[in-house]
Amino acid sequence: MNYCGTSYPRNDGFDKVTGRAGFTDDIYLPHMLYAKVLRSPYAHAKVLSIDTSAAEALPGVEAVCSFKNTPNKPFNTSATMITTNPGMEPVRDQTIFTDEPKYIGDEIAAVAAETEAIAEEAIKLIKVEYEVLPAVYDPKEALEPGAPIVQPKYQNPEHNNICGCIININLGDVEKGFAEADVIVEADIKLPRVKQVQLEPHGAVATYKNGELEILSTTQTPHPSKMIIAYALDMPESKVRVANPPYIGGGFGSRIGLSGKAELLAAVLAMKALKPVKLIYTRKEDTTCSDSRHGGYLHARMGAKKDGTLVALDTTSWLNTGAYCTFGVELVGVCGACGTAGTYRIPNLKYVGHPVYTNQQTAGAFRGFGTPQGNSIVEACIDKIAQALNRDPLDLRKQNTTKNGDRNWFPFELGSVGVDECLDKAAAEIGWAEKRGKKQEGNIRRGVGIACGTHVSNAAPFCVDYNTIQLQFEQDGSFFIRSGIPELGPGSTTAITQVACDLMGVPMETTKLVFGDTYATPFDIGSHATRTLYSVSQVLEKACKVLKKDVLSYAANFLGVDEAELTLDNAIVSGAGKEITMKKLCYEAHLRGKQFLCTECNVPTNSLPWYADAAEVEVDMEKGIVKVLKIAAAHDVGKCINPALCEGQIEGGALQGVGYATTEEMIYVEGKGFINDTYATYKIPRADDRPELKSIIVESNDPKGTFGVKGIGEVGICAIVPAILSAVEDATGVRFTEIPLTPERVLKGLKEAGKI
Amino acid sequence: MNYCGTSYPRNDGFDKVTGRAGFTDDIYLPHMLYAKVLRSPYAHAKVLSIDTSAAEALPGVEAVCSFKNTPNKPFNTSATMITTNPGMEPVRDQTIFTDEPKYIGDEIAAVAAETEAIAEEAIKLIKVEYEVLPAVYDPKEALEPGAPIVQPKYQNPEHNNICGCIININLGDVEKGFAEADVIVEADIKLPRVKQVQLEPHGAVATYKNGELEILSTTQTPHPSKMIIAYALDMPESKVRVANPPYIGGGFGSRIGLSGKAELLAAVLAMKALKPVKLIYTRKEDTTCSDSRHGGYLHARMGAKKDGTLVALDTTSWLNTGAYCTFGVELVGVCGACGTAGTYRIPNLKYVGHPVYTNQQTAGAFRGFGTPQGNSIVEACIDKIAQALNRDPLDLRKQNTTKNGDRNWFPFELGSVGVDECLDKAAAEIGWAEKRGKKQEGNIRRGVGIACGTHVSNAAPFCVDYNTIQLQFEQDGSFFIRSGIPELGPGSTTAITQVACDLMGVPMETTKLVFGDTYATPFDIGSHATRTLYSVSQVLEKACKVLKKDVLSYAANFLGVDEAELTLDNAIVSGAGKEITMKKLCYEAHLRGKQFLCTECNVPTNSLPWYADAAEVEVDMEKGIVKVLKIAAAHDVGKCINPALCEGQIEGGALQGVGYATTEEMIYVEGKGFINDTYATYKIPRADDRPELKSIIVESNDPKGTFGVKGIGEVGICAIVPAILSAVEDATGVRFTEIPLTPERVLKGLKEAGKI
Repeated sequence: MNYCGTSYPRNDGFDKVTGRAGFTDDIYLPHMLYAKVLRSPYAHAKVLSIDTSAAEALPGVEAVCSFKNTPNKPFNTSATMITTNPGMEPVRDQTIFTDEPKYIGDEIAAVAAETEAIAEEAIKLIKVEYEVLPAVYDPKEALEPGAPIVQPKYQNPEHNNICGCIININLGDVEKGFAEADVIVEADIKLPRVKQVQLEPHGAVATYKNGELEILSTTQTPHPSKMIIAYALDMPESKVRVANPPYIGGGFGSRIGLSGKAELLAAVLAMKALKPVKLIYTRKEDTTCSDSRHGGYLHARMGAKKDGTLVALDTTSWLNTGAYCTFGVELVGVCGACGTAGTYRIPNLKYVGHPVYTNQQTAGAFRGFGTPQGNSIVEACIDKIAQALNRDPLDLRKQNTTKNGDRNWFPFELGSVGVDECLDKAAAEIGWAEKRGKKQEGNIRRGVGIACGTHVSNAAPFCVDYNTIQLQFEQDGSFFIRSGIPELGPGSTTAITQVACDLMGVPMETTKLVFGDTYATPFDIGSHATRTLYSVSQVLEKACKVLKKDVLSYAANFLGVDEAELTLDNAIVSGAGKEITMKKLCYEAHLRGKQFLCTECNVPTNSLPWYADAAEVEVDMEKGIVKVLKIAAAHDVGKCINPALCEGQIEGGALQGVGYATTEEMIYVEGKGFINDTYATYKIPRADDRPELKSIIVESNDPKGTFGVKGIGEVGICAIVPAILSAVEDATGVRFTEIPLTPERVLKGLKEAGKI
Repeated sequence: MNYCGTSYPRNDGFDKVTGRAGFTDDIYLPHMLYAKVLRSPYAHAKVLSIDTSAAEALPGVEAVCSFKNTPNKPFNTSATMITTNPGMEPVRDQTIFTDEPKYIGDEIAAVAAETEAIAEEAIKLIKVEYEVLPAVYDPKEALEPGAPIVQPKYQNPEHNNICGCIININLGDVEKGFAEADVIVEADIKLPRVKQVQLEPHGAVATYKNGELEILSTTQTPHPSKMIIAYALDMPESKVRVANPPYIGGGFGSRIGLSGKAELLAAVLAMKALKPVKLIYTRKEDTTCSDSRHGGYLHARMGAKKDGTLVALDTTSWLNTGAYCTFGVELVGVCGACGTAGTYRIPNLKYVGHPVYTNQQTAGAFRGFGTPQGNSIVEACIDKIAQALNRDPLDLRKQNTTKNGDRNWFPFELGSVGVDECLDKAAAEIGWAEKRGKKQEGNIRRGVGIACGTHVSNAAPFCVDYNTIQLQFEQDGSFFIRSGIPELGPGSTTAITQVACDLMGVPMETTKLVFGDTYATPFDIGSHATRTLYSVSQVLEKACKVLKKDVLSYAANFLGVDEAELTLDNAIVSGAGKEITMKKLCYEAHLRGKQFLCTECNVPTNSLPWYADAAEVEVDMEKGIVKVLKIAAAHDVGKCINPALCEGQIEGGALQGVGYATTEEMIYVEGKGFINDTYATYKIPRADDRPELKSIIVESNDPKGTFGVKGIGEVGICAIVPAILSAVEDATGVRFTEIPLTPERVLKGLKEAGKI
């Protein structure tokens, strides 16, 4: 078959366009209760007493849970807990409820009642007496001596308020490198905390019966979530079922592991009430009580020779991981590894990353997972080197980018490296040659910028990462696949089915992929780290080979021909002048007690996706308004399986990057918490904010990826911020060091630089 | 572990005793519609016209289906369709709806509406014009020349109204046998049509989306049902999901294949309405429009030598299979094979079985599947031989029963034969020696009787029969099993888990068996033919061996010891002075990208279960009332896995047999159909009708069965009728040749025999 490379329609398209798709909040089970959560109004406090009796007495209330009647076993809501390599211990610093809230929104108690209104009322009837404790919000302040301690029990034993450990990446000798440099630049950037604001808020429906727990969950990682839930509740994993509801409204990393704490909150209520419990986070709860992107500070020095050769890069990050460690440590690592150390040939590298506890909500995984943060500072540096050496920043980049055969600091071969083609194509599309460096005057000024980078196609070999797949031919020759992945919305399950059908030689129309249910599917780490299509394709490749051999061998015997002469395509086995449809072969095999099926596991390789984003902006010097006119996003995806879906990922990432650069920012007010917690107040780009988006697909045919494929899910966002900052600098002459580029911030920057 | 042999509590016990168990009618899906069916009021007719416009126009009606707008591809609702061996073609004589109804109740049209009341009203608005055609109801009449033809298109081409083919079983030379006989007896019996009346009526909930069909169904055979549904609708099997709801209220054979036609009726409505559709049969529909047990006639001649040695048996059956062929052919075969030819060493055997089409509802599978019918005639004959030779019927039986090493006509080794021990124990328990043959006088007379027999433990090698199982250790060492069987209520899933835990060496508490869902489980023929525990245990034995080897090999490497020294028990691998818990081993393996899992298929062997039932009855000669005082049911189960569950099967079967013998009978009135269609009018035994039931478990340790086990599900009922008839004869001197023994029938028989 030849599906790969075609925009085969999504398998969920009909349901979605006709409004029939059911999400978690559309689930209604008989006798189901509705849950609401009581959250801490203080950033740091001690619960002196809690009285739930009035809530319990309210008619219609069927369960009230708090730290007093639920397990307090420390765990970690993120999948980090079960993907950490041997010898590395995850930081387990969370409990289901707490008597010492550490951020505004921390879970104190929860209620399950016959209606949402009753649950809401019951929450108000819970009396809690708090002792307010000192709090800290800024990651740099948190590291100062005498700062309030956020996690005395779980912080790094040698560093106050460091979550896990300080990350160090070293290559060569960075001081020696700077000594050899002809030019050294420095850069700083301050990044906001931003939120995934996926369309569907976190939620779960839990049912407990006969000692088994069934959780319908919006998780990106059904199998790891099962492990986390079983761990926290001290249940056998075999008796915890985690299944995705029919559809999930996006994730962007916020659902790796648990969906907030929705699964466990619903579970303990269901276990107490012995009825199903549905908990859907409000938008406010989703925004302020689940993992966001890490904000914080980065500082870097970069050194280059006169000829432009980069020789040293020394980066430090202070990222605000909030009250609990979810992906705090890994993300700060990826920020250094991919974001700062991945893109260029730099022989002498140093990166020091600080994952810092503060009394704010937890930051964790969000599309890009640290790489956007790292890219922001490195791309600022290289633009400065270009200025210092009076070089074209595009040309300087290409001089220093990673080339085929390089390894940089990575512990594996990188696969194909298409970054230069990306740079060229993005630059061409944006009109780099004509537009860059043109002197701008007047109120409305235009500029173009470019930035590039890399990421990973999964978490191997850094973390535990493997896929299992089960294939079978049904008795009528139709093809059936079980995979433990979810479908968050990007269309992964459609693209994976295309790969499977091409590998197997069977039509899409008679192929079904079952996913997102731990009872129905074999183990898979799930959807994160840009891995889904890349890694599942690899295990499919392995399994299809095994299954095809079984089919052809049986067919050879059945037809009385030599197996080597047979091939399988379009669900027909043919060769040696004979042919038999899979429909007939499978039924004949069935009548003889035989079914074609196999189960295969695979630890994926890793291949680096590459990208270059070029931006064109318009700056209103008077109003401080930055308008992104166009993004040209060129992506080395290895091999494009489904152009429409691939472009969807690129465009979605780019637009999210435009929001990150220009409008998105979670605004924290002491004593109130994050105040812009609705779609009305937290400004993601709307349809009319969308610039012209041009996706450029570069196919470098990765030698390790199945059919040459690499990951695409996260990388769309990774270089948008530096591309826009570079374009704004091109327009205004000012390199902004803080985002988003709100009018206030732009006007202040222009003023300080004497540009207005 | 050592669970086998213990009455481990059922896995569904808590839910059931607390009333939390959800059945099909407890399912509510968003936007779900309710279905009702329009059924033929005529036993045979032609639909001249059908007008559904008024029904379609009724507000709240969302779909109206009939033969006019649904597939008319002939199929077969029973699993026979996909379990037939190569070369044997199933009889596909059904369509979803018909324009030529063949029994009172045949499906003409169906409606899905917002409420049941609207659907009911809409049904009444469908106008159908019929031409009434001649009909035939009795199987002997149906075979007479000139009888109306029920299935002109699908009947046997050489025999009018024969469904499939006439079954012939021959061993030796029966005429030669009779020539050698010193004594020849003849017997006749007329058996009623009886119904399973399982607690939960047939039902299904169908959802159609994105070209996929999901059916929640009460089927006993999820995977075969999927195949049947896909076949009838011309869909790929991979896109049809059949899943059992959380619980099913019994089946007794009535749900092998489809549940009536509930799945397909709900499916076509759901496909038309594009909303979920629930169809629950009323009790009346369940009773009169789904497969019952075959009633009909049997005649036999049996010959023996003076010394009691049986030398010949010639049996003919005429069984009423009704309007369509579901299991008509197979069941008439089993009647001969197990019922007449299975129990005794008879060198010269002949059986001619007639599966006869009539214009009544279809008869199909019901606990015992033909064996009770066959036993009834053979056990009558042997009692007559005993009388003729003045022998003790118990002693005569034991002289002729099958012994270890015999094959009779079976195409496989029989396994262990414990029938003599069963006879001895049942006889001892009923007080045979003291009570049998005692002259009875006065109005209330007592008697004892005994009967014995055999059956199968699955359908292999006669039909396609195989199991697939998937095993895995979760990352915390808990054990997880996937099997495509359902749980109809007997506790099979508990017993199977006991077997699995003993085989694997892991605790029940951390073991989960997932079943009853074609998307979640690998192929299994399902629950029928007394096969579930027997056949699943065999595939488990195969798979656990493979999985244990994988675990021990990995552990040996991990611990640095010799694999041969290691054993796994109680979820601990130990040996060579070392030990590691499965919890730790599985997690360490996980961290290294390894999970212990396997998939294995198996075509089971077959082993014969044996049994002897002794009955004590009291007959009121004046009122004609037969009261069964006691049943002693001795069963050679090979090895008893769970005594409580095993006794439950024996007692349930025995009680169903008491109803069959004494009260149950579907009463057909021409022009009205079966009129006793409720629990109030169709008399199954109530709690206060229960005689003393004594289950006696005989363990013959079958050499082929895992741990020595054989099947038990069906055999409880198989010899109850002849045991009671024999006891009544002992009490009254009259051998009744028609059941049930209603007072009218008893009084008539006693009168005709001159006993009153």
